[in-house]
Order: sequence, then C-alpha cells, then structure tokens
Amino acid sequence: MNKLINRQWRLVARPVGDIKSSDFEYREEPIPHLQNGEVLVRNIYLSLDPTNRIWMSDRPQYMPPVELGQVMRGLVLGVVEESQNPNFQAGDLVSGLLGWQDYAIVSSQNLFSLTKLPKPLPVPLTAFLGPLSFIGCTAYFGLIDIGKPQAGETVVVSAAAGAVGSIVGQIAKIKGCRVVGITGSDEKCQWLLEELGFDAAINYKTADLIPALAESCPNGIDVYFENVGGSILDAVLTQVNLNARIPLCGLISTYNAQKPVPGPYNFSQILMRRVLVKGFIVTDYLQQWDIAFRDMGKWLQEGKIKYTEEIVAGLENAPTAILKLFDGNKIGKLIVKIAEEP
Amino acid sequence: MNKLINRQWRLVARPVGDIKSSDFEYREEPIPHLQNGEVLVRNIYLSLDPTNRIWMSDRPQYMPPVELGQVMRGLVLGVVEESQNPNFQAGDLVSGLLGWQDYAIVSSQNLFSLTKLPKPLPVPLTAFLGPLSFIGCTAYFGLIDIGKPQAGETVVVSAAAGAVGSIVGQIAKIKGCRVVGITGSDEKCQWLLEELGFDAAINYKTADLIPALAESCPNGIDVYFENVGGSILDAVLTQVNLNARIPLCGLISTYNAQKPVPGPYNFSQILMRRVLVKGFIVTDYLQQWDIAFRDMGKWLQEGKIKYTEEIVAGLENAPTAILKLFDGNKIGKLIVKIAEEP
Repeated sequence: MNKLINRQWRLVARPVGDIKSSDFEYREEPIPHLQNGEVLVRNIYLSLDPTNRIWMSDRPQYMPPVELGQVMRGLVLGVVEESQNPNFQAGDLVSGLLGWQDYAIVSSQNLFSLTKLPKPLPVPLTAFLGPLSFIGCTAYFGLIDIGKPQAGETVVVSAAAGAVGSIVGQIAKIKGCRVVGITGSDEKCQWLLEELGFDAAINYKTADLIPALAESCPNGIDVYFENVGGSILDAVLTQVNLNARIPLCGLISTYNAQKPVPGPYNFSQILMRRVLVKGFIVTDYLQQWDIAFRDMGKWLQEGKIKYTEEIVAGLENAPTAILKLFDGNKIGKLIVKIAEEP
Repeated sequence: MNKLINRQWRLVARPVGDIKSSDFEYREEPIPHLQNGEVLVRNIYLSLDPTNRIWMSDRPQYMPPVELGQVMRGLVLGVVEESQNPNFQAGDLVSGLLGWQDYAIVSSQNLFSLTKLPKPLPVPLTAFLGPLSFIGCTAYFGLIDIGKPQAGETVVVSAAAGAVGSIVGQIAKIKGCRVVGITGSDEKCQWLLEELGFDAAINYKTADLIPALAESCPNGIDVYFENVGGSILDAVLTQVNLNARIPLCGLISTYNAQKPVPGPYNFSQILMRRVLVKGFIVTDYLQQWDIAFRDMGKWLQEGKIKYTEEIVAGLENAPTAILKLFDGNKIGKLIVKIAEEP
C-alpha cells in the first residue's frame, strides 16, 4: 500500500430497497499535507452497522445523511500516523467516524472528533468496535435507562445475536432477569443459549411467534428491546405486561423498504397495557458514556460479557460485506479489516 | 316514575363496527330490598364516553369487558335514596360506575364503589362528570405526568373539542404553552379559539393536515396528546421535535374498526426523533386524583377552565345518544339526564 494513495469508497447512489454494491464508487485520492491542528489517522478496522443504511438514505434521520459523492461514513479504529495537534501523538490508537478509507485527516473542530483509546489496551482492540464502542453504550443505555429491568422480570430482545442484541441480553442476565432472544436461525439460537446464557431463544423464521413468545415468557414481557420492528413487534405487543417498557433502538426490518411500512397493528396495546415506547440514539447519552464503559470494561474482564465478531479482510470488500447485515445470518459484530494492527 | 321499577339498558350484543342501538336491550326490573352495608342510589346523570366502546367489545382491554346480558357500565352521578351503610346517608350526592339504569344498589365491597361529592357543591353538579371526574383527571395526568409541558413549548391535542381534549388544551395554556387543537368542524375550531383561548385550531376534515400542522406549529410539536390515532397521529409524527412526548389516551378512530388497523406509518420517527409514547388509563393515577381535583377546582373557580356539555334528556335515549360520540359533531361532554337533581 502506498502511503500517498488513499483508497476510498464514496456513496454515489441512495439505495432503493436493498443496498447494492454499486451504491458505492471506488476512488483513489492523494493525501493532502497536514494543516496546523490536524491529525492523520491510518484506519485499521471499519465497523459495519445497520444504522449505516439510514445514513445512506435521505429520509429524516438523527444525523445528516451522507452526501452523495462523499466518503461513506463509518466508525473506525485507527492509529495516528502524523499529528500537528498537541493532543495526539504518532502511535496513539484512536476511534472516530473516519469513513470507508485507508486514511483520514481530522481537525480538532470536528463534531465527531477522535477519541483516544487507553494505553495499554485492557482488552483486544476490536472490543472498541463492540462492547466498548457506541454499540455497547447503545445496549447499556437503552436497556438500563429506558428498559429499567428489575430482577425477576422478563426481557425480550430482537436481533438477539447481533452486536447490540447480544450485549443487551447479557446485561439483562447480569441484572437478574429472564432473557429471551429472537433471532433468525437455529444456529444463532444455540449460540444464545449455550454461549451467552439466554434462558430461551426463538427462531422467528420457523417459530409461530405468538405461541412461542407465550411459552418462553410465562410471566409476560416486561421489557422488549426493539431492534427490528415489523411483525415481531406486533407479536410482542400481544404478550406485554402492564407498564412494559420498549426501548426503540432500531427498526432494521423496515430500513430497506421501498413502500411506506405500517406501524404495528397492535399499536392499541400500547394504550391498553400502558406501555412506554421511547426512541433513542446512543449519542443522546454522550455525556454518560464513561459510566457505560466503566461497567462494561469490568464485566468484560470478569467474563460476564462475551462478544463475537465476523471480520472481513480488505477495504475493497466493504460494499459486499455490508450486505451481510441484512441477510439474517450474521452472528455478532461485523468488521472490515483495512490494515494490520500496529 | 315508579320507584319499584328500575329501567335498565343491558348490553346484549358486541358491536360489529359502529355501535347500534340494537346492541342494547331495554329491561324493567324490580328493586330488591337492601342488605346490610348496601346503598340504594337514584341515578341522575349518566356520562357517555368513547371508552364505553372499548368496554362493549371483548378485545383485550384495561378493565373486564361488560358481560353480555349485564347492565351497561357507565359513570353516573346520583343521590342516595336509602342506606344500610354508616358511611352514606339519604340525600348524599355520589358518583360511581352505576350503569345505564334508574337505580343502583352498591355494596361497600365493590371495586369501583361510591365517591361522595362535597357538601355544599362548590360547582354545578355536572362538573363532576367533566373537569372534576375521571375526564378531568385523564387530561391532567396525561398532560402533566407524561406530556410534561414546559412554558413556551407547543402542545397539540386531537379530539380537541371533546371532553378530555378541551381540558387538555386549557391546562396547557395555564402552563404557558402554545396550544393547537385538531377537531372536526369549523364551528368547533371557532369554539376552541374564541371560547377556550387556543392559539390555533385545525379542521382535519378540510385541512391538508401536514402543512396545516407545520404552519400552526412553527417551532415543531413538543407534546401531542393523542385521543384518536390513525392518520392524524401519522401527520403529527412528521412534525414532532426531538424528545417529544405523546401521552396515548385514546384511539377513537380505531374503536369501531372491523379489520386490523395498522399503526402509524411514520412509526420510525419515534426512533429518529427519540419520541416518548406512553399509554395510560386514568385509574393508574387513582392515588393522586385529589391532587388533580384540587388544581382543577381552583382553575374552575378562577374561570381558567371552561367546559361545555351536551345533555340528552331521558334514559330511554341513551342507546341513540352514544352514537353522537363517533359522528364528529359533538362539543364538550356528552351526558344523559336520567332524573331531576334533588
């Protein structure tokens, strides 16, 4: 790899329905000289996440969409190669929204500026794309601040084998809850039960969802951590207890939809059972992330939180790798490895 | 009227779609002798409310449905005619779920037992079916506890000329908010603006709802007090601010539906804008009703809360009067007068 060449994937089309690799365009750019205050980062790991699909669209959303023609946005772990900023030194490991590219130049004024990782690293580097990233914070704050799970309550999580869902379930176990995961294959069900200690797991592709939930949740559902929307939410609403809480984290089943998607047909149960539904985005909790990282770091070191990753080699494969988010076969965190760790 | 005869309307069919008068059956029953602890009430005013439609169905709901063959449930103001209970004396004015009938016998063990009204009455008797009833408490707790309106925020209420909605808007004005009402006729819009002091009013039958909301709510919507559901909720979700609150009080537009009703198509905005949606039923706040009654009584006496009533004469007309709840022409509280006030 030539340091003077920066390989990039730029967003050139807004997806219609499913993402296509052709929504991205490959470019090679030179790297400009650093200005005062700037930092040059060599990107190592790129995080691929369902929310990327939202950023690619121009629907109303929680951050500005990625502009057509710009480098695709993505969370990255990298290493500082060169710094004109007193807060960073060459060799520092950092994370930030550095995009689908080999190198990023960051000025200190950027909204999502760099976060320095601790030295020495207390856990493997990629944990900072999972439990110790916005992923872990998403699980943590959605479950604890909105879900407010009490020991003995039943917590159901959808996309349970995903990066966020798998952490949600494990935190709920730590909090003393009965935990039921909904996921898309028997293999993933087995992983939830055997590796992560879930109390029950439902394969939504083969199960009759309402009776399956009724059987797995004999005391009803107190907290439903929602990642998917659609018919799963509808089934859950038939089984919620009075004053259940639904942290609304994602609606992945609807992101690729080309037509308007109806809300849940059982919406009226939100009234009848006095359910709380609250949308949230992890950046709402930015001021409290250190609390989550403290707890999560402790749980990781105690072995109470496990995580798994699927690592795709090569930045060139990012536009095909992202499709794995939506095919229902992924377990854990999806990562593209751009370069070797230092 | 012969005191020995108790005219009753019993529920004999669950409505399919709209309520039909034939869902009720007229009966005349003798009044049994009072047992120890019992109280005989002569009913004076019967409250007709959208929630009656829920009680008539056997869908999952917040109270047991009215059983077929039983006297139709309804909130009533009455006067004690005879008492075998030391807590009540003949002549006491009371309220309770005494049903669509001339007389009710209440035992002290009843879940919804009698509430004695204050002596002397500080306000006209029928206020105890409106601002000083569960109607007023519904408006009060939904708006204040869930909506949490702050001075300067924009509050939108649907079914704004209804018994609950008209009080919601007036409380929001007392709290210093900009208040926008959605209702179903120009006449009702005028009433909201001129009599109740709303800042804007939208006739959803003639307005293009999204631009009308955008114009009436130049700073977006912070609180939406939801009484109706359906397309109005969808329109509101396009205009909600970050962290808006939606107390979910009723979904009258869906109560008569014969087919499954989809939830809001803009459900994903609950996520994107981090909206809070919370269903509630006024009985959730039973322990705090006195707080609401204290404030509401004060506001009534200060003239800050106005209310209006449509009083239909004669118990015999209850099964046709209830249809007025759903035709969109009603202003204020719908009441059936069963007998003269003492």
